[in-house]
Amino acid sequence: MSDIANRRRFLGLAGTLGLFGACQSPEGTPSSEAPSRLGSPVSAYGERSRFETVARAMRTVKNPEVSSSRTPLASTHGVITPSSLHFERHHSGVPDIDPEKHRLVIHGLVERPMLFSVADLRRLPSVSRVYFVECSGNSGGEWGPNRGPTVDASHGLASCSEWTGVPLKTVLEEVGLQPEAKWLLAEGGDACRMSRSVPLEKALDDALVAYGQNGEAIRPSQGYPLRLILPGWEGNANVKWLHRILVGDQPFMTKDETSKYTELMPDGSAWQFTFAMDAKSVITEPSGGQTLPGPGFYEVRGLAWSGRGRIEKVEVSTDGGSTWSEALLQEPRFPKAFTRFRFPWQWTGQESTLLSRCQDDTGYLQPTVEELIATRGTSSAYHNNGQKAWTVTSGGTVGPASV
Amino acid sequence: MSDIANRRRFLGLAGTLGLFGACQSPEGTPSSEAPSRLGSPVSAYGERSRFETVARAMRTVKNPEVSSSRTPLASTHGVITPSSLHFERHHSGVPDIDPEKHRLVIHGLVERPMLFSVADLRRLPSVSRVYFVECSGNSGGEWGPNRGPTVDASHGLASCSEWTGVPLKTVLEEVGLQPEAKWLLAEGGDACRMSRSVPLEKALDDALVAYGQNGEAIRPSQGYPLRLILPGWEGNANVKWLHRILVGDQPFMTKDETSKYTELMPDGSAWQFTFAMDAKSVITEPSGGQTLPGPGFYEVRGLAWSGRGRIEKVEVSTDGGSTWSEALLQEPRFPKAFTRFRFPWQWTGQESTLLSRCQDDTGYLQPTVEELIATRGTSSAYHNNGQKAWTVTSGGTVGPASV
Repeated sequence: MSDIANRRRFLGLAGTLGLFGACQSPEGTPSSEAPSRLGSPVSAYGERSRFETVARAMRTVKNPEVSSSRTPLASTHGVITPSSLHFERHHSGVPDIDPEKHRLVIHGLVERPMLFSVADLRRLPSVSRVYFVECSGNSGGEWGPNRGPTVDASHGLASCSEWTGVPLKTVLEEVGLQPEAKWLLAEGGDACRMSRSVPLEKALDDALVAYGQNGEAIRPSQGYPLRLILPGWEGNANVKWLHRILVGDQPFMTKDETSKYTELMPDGSAWQFTFAMDAKSVITEPSGGQTLPGPGFYEVRGLAWSGRGRIEKVEVSTDGGSTWSEALLQEPRFPKAFTRFRFPWQWTGQESTLLSRCQDDTGYLQPTVEELIATRGTSSAYHNNGQKAWTVTSGGTVGPASV
Repeated sequence: MSDIANRRRFLGLAGTLGLFGACQSPEGTPSSEAPSRLGSPVSAYGERSRFETVARAMRTVKNPEVSSSRTPLASTHGVITPSSLHFERHHSGVPDIDPEKHRLVIHGLVERPMLFSVADLRRLPSVSRVYFVECSGNSGGEWGPNRGPTVDASHGLASCSEWTGVPLKTVLEEVGLQPEAKWLLAEGGDACRMSRSVPLEKALDDALVAYGQNGEAIRPSQGYPLRLILPGWEGNANVKWLHRILVGDQPFMTKDETSKYTELMPDGSAWQFTFAMDAKSVITEPSGGQTLPGPGFYEVRGLAWSGRGRIEKVEVSTDGGSTWSEALLQEPRFPKAFTRFRFPWQWTGQESTLLSRCQDDTGYLQPTVEELIATRGTSSAYHNNGQKAWTVTSGGTVGPASV
């Protein structure tokens, strides 16, 4: 039914797109730059076209190794992020690990401390699931009045992959947990030994020790050869280059969960262990930096995700939030994964402000940034899941709505 | 419940894997080659690890441009094939097309012949769906007694991606079909103008004009910038570098559907337009060329797919087909897409022959090769969806079962 409704809206598109209609001799038209000689041969490992130059925007936090790069969300399709364009955030660069030599040690409050090679883990019962990973600092520039000029800048620290690995629960059953076990320390094999405390309930729920990403080995910048995947939880806790799990009876209070990745409240207290990423959505097309060539039909596209479950509804407003309409959601909707939404829009050519908001299966509705600020102030750099507004000027240029 | 059953089977894995158990001082063990200096910086477009050398095996059919390369199925995870490892089969090489100059012309029995740029198509309502593409010549070596030594050799002309594009139905509604329209000619922009006839029913059903693959632009070797996707139909008909659709009232009898891609029967007649790929499965681990290090737990893994719908059941036999057990299927199961199956197996160390067979939601059961031969003889190189058997010797080496 929606399909039929959509179709009605753009029938006669030829006019609005300025298509070359009713050509007399289509065979004679230069329909493409098709070659008259043989093309390139087959190859062992393919590359993208030389005409494709979409890239991750890199931002140096301290030096080139302690930096981030952002997924160019405005240029991605569907829900799978190409591994080459998955966002990065490293605290001491990408280690160059030989998987033959890599080991995962599990010790502490366990019955049998063990070392696992990657091959050992590959032999255990495996699962593959589609999950997003989002840096808790994503949209950290959206608290103030100068909001991100492009969706890549404002939301690009989020990506989504099909991860394959062994449930952490399975691995923990192999080593045997002692009765006092309550928290794990997950430590990365990078130079700074990035490490986070993980409550045992999550470890025994849906956590994975992953070795596969989008069908092949995890990319070095995503934790090769092993990454802890904590579905729906802030990216930082999804420890890359995982080489050690220490089981204890309390959190470990590492530098990465005390001096960083906590949220300062207006009263001076700080929220700690705020792991789950709340429901969030953003319009990726049209979005800041793009230009609409003229009035007519556009498909408004975007992404929604929730660290607490499945996206149930996405609404789009084209009048700055006065009225809302439901968007079409790409099926199937995986829990804790990107959901692509699409909404047909006839742009009249007048200045318009576009917004999206989503709701997950807990009933939670994505708030405005102003609602977040009312609760949490503006000292907290993390966990900004507020709505994002884009203004399309009458000239067709798109940029962040003024606040 | 299956999870619990699985777990019981491998509990105590430490013994069978020869894991380093009960180590006294895990902190002191060389748990990984973790560096003590900064790693690599972030990058604009990521690459895989230098330790990952999995590749497509290339086979020259006539010359390097008229060749094929195979997906290394034994090394892939989940259901998404990495775009860099998607199989290839080209008839005149990979053209180097500038997407700004590329056009899709639609003419013939239409109301309004039109030229579409890639940007025009990108503006139309889009969908993203996960579909396999399989060359109809896949497993073409399985008709005779010398069957493929590895799963890559026997089944590697099949891959699965998340495709994004515009329904062909939408595009055809823009140009308007004349009442006599019954077939389309889809022509590629490669030097040989690879072209196939497509019945209108399929074009109006689930066919896509795709521009996205696994989140980014389609790869050149998969048809950049536009590929016709005919879900579940033989790969050859999913015309790459799509630049022309001619609408007619009968099939066009191109060279690619008369001299090739037809199936010669024992009585001398030939089957033509046998588009749909029937239900098929194959075990990818353990598979030919691999060696099991010793008796103990293994997860048997594989892929199943059907061009007619959804995979409903996969069964595995470890005794050459005498007895069968149901495998666990990765959810969600997309229609006309790869479904990953997994089956827990305790290998006793005795010679064993492994087989898989699948059933789709039409009720069709994957046949043996012998059953196929009884109907179709051995002159037909295409559409071999027979069961594939692997023999594990007592020494642990895996190879094709003798026929």
